[in-house]
Amino acid sequence: MAGARDGGPRTIRLFVEAPLAAGATVALASGQAHYLRNVMRQAPGDRIRLFNGRDGEWEGAIETLAPSRAGIRLGARLAPQPPATDLRLLFAPLKSERTRFVVEKATELGVGAIQPVFTRYGQTRRVNVERLHAHAIEAAEQCGRLDVPSIMPPCPLTDALADWPPERRLLVCDPEAERSVAESLADAPAGILVGPEGGFAPDERRLLADHPATVPARLGPRILRAETAVAAALACWQALAGDWR
Amino acid sequence: MAGARDGGPRTIRLFVEAPLAAGATVALASGQAHYLRNVMRQAPGDRIRLFNGRDGEWEGAIETLAPSRAGIRLGARLAPQPPATDLRLLFAPLKSERTRFVVEKATELGVGAIQPVFTRYGQTRRVNVERLHAHAIEAAEQCGRLDVPSIMPPCPLTDALADWPPERRLLVCDPEAERSVAESLADAPAGILVGPEGGFAPDERRLLADHPATVPARLGPRILRAETAVAAALACWQALAGDWR
Repeated sequence: MAGARDGGPRTIRLFVEAPLAAGATVALASGQAHYLRNVMRQAPGDRIRLFNGRDGEWEGAIETLAPSRAGIRLGARLAPQPPATDLRLLFAPLKSERTRFVVEKATELGVGAIQPVFTRYGQTRRVNVERLHAHAIEAAEQCGRLDVPSIMPPCPLTDALADWPPERRLLVCDPEAERSVAESLADAPAGILVGPEGGFAPDERRLLADHPATVPARLGPRILRAETAVAAALACWQALAGDWR
Repeated sequence: MAGARDGGPRTIRLFVEAPLAAGATVALASGQAHYLRNVMRQAPGDRIRLFNGRDGEWEGAIETLAPSRAGIRLGARLAPQPPATDLRLLFAPLKSERTRFVVEKATELGVGAIQPVFTRYGQTRRVNVERLHAHAIEAAEQCGRLDVPSIMPPCPLTDALADWPPERRLLVCDPEAERSVAESLADAPAGILVGPEGGFAPDERRLLADHPATVPARLGPRILRAETAVAAALACWQALAGDWR
C-alpha cells in the first residue's frame, strides 16, 4: 500500500512448501516458474524471496529457469518466522468473486485461519477450498506475510459452534447488537463471525445467544455487504486488540 | 449484511433527484423503470422506497410501469434526512474494478465526499466521474443511506493539499508512520488520504509532512492493497471517532 515501495519495483515473494535453509536449492512448481519467466520476465541470477510458513523469509537467486521448472539457490535468511496469528474468521460463503475478496482481505488483515460456515440464509453452499488456498497464498506473497492462513473445511455453523472452545471469544457481527464493535473489542476476541447477508435464522440466533464464547457487536448504522463487514471487523480488531497497536 | 433482513426479501430503495413530498408522483428514469420491471419483476401496486439526499426516506407505490418509464406515488415519510457525514476520502485512482470497490466500500462506510487525487506513482490518471457517481448511488441504495457521497473532480494531490483547510484534520495512511491508526484517531480527523500502492514521491512526502492538517497513521505491519487500506482506515475511523460509537 501507500509508501511501502516508494515507487521502486516490487520484490517478488513466493510461497513454497519445501524446507528453507542456507545454501539449499529449492525447486519451484511449474506455475511459479512460468510466473517468474513469462509474467515477471526474470532471468537466472535475479533475486527473489521465499517463505514457507515455518522457516522465516529467505533471499534466493534464480539458478535455473526453464518454461516449467526453476531452481532457487538460497542465500541469507532475512527474517525469522514470527508467531502465528491466533485470530480465526468464520464467514458464510458468498458468490465466487466476493469470497475471493474475503480471503484476500482476511489474509492482508492478518487472520490465522479461515472457516467457511453454512447458515440457513447463506448465498451458496459451493466452496472450492483449493482455490481459496491459492487466493490466500497469492495475498500472503503480496502483503509481506511469512505464513498463509489455513482454509478450514467448510461446515455447518452449528458444527463450528459445537466445536468452538468456550474460552476463545467469538465476536459475532450483528446489526441488532447493542454494543458497538469498539466496545466489544475490549474483550479481545480470538474469532470473528460474519453471517450471510440474509441474516441468521431464528434458531441460529438462539444458538449464538446461548453459546458461552459469543460477543455480539454492531458495525454502525448502515447495512454492510458481508465482505465489507469482514474487512471492517478485522481492521477494528487489529487496530484495538491485534498487531496494529 | 448479516441479520439485517432476516432472510426476507430486500426492500427496493431507489435514489432520485426529484423533490419528495406526501402525495406527489415521482417519474423514474428509464434505467430505473427497466430495473423494477425486468430485473426485480415488480408490478403496479408494489411498494418501494425512495430517497434523494435531501428529504429523508419515503414509501411509495408503483403507479405506472412501462418498459422505459415508471411513476411512483409517494405515501408516508419513513425517516427524516439525517445530517450529512463530514468525512472526506482522498485516494489515488486504481484500475477500474478496484476503484469501483473503493467507492462502494467508502459509501457503505459512511464517507461524505470522495476526492480522487493524482500522485507521482499512481496506477492511472483515468477517472470516469459519472461512473463513480453511479457506483456511489447503487451502494447508497443497498446500504440504507439517505444520501449519496459526492464524487469530487479529480485533481493533483498538490492542489488538494493547497485547498485543504488547516483546521480539518487529514489522516494520512502511511506504513512509515510511527503512530498506529488507533492512536492517531484520537484527533478525530475529518479526512483520510490513501496514497498509491507505489507510495508517495519524496516531494509529496515533504508536502504532507509540512501541511498543518496532516496526521500520519500506520495500518499495521503488512503491506495492504490500496483498497484494503481505504476500507480499514474508514472502519477504524467510524468505530473510534464516527457514527459506529
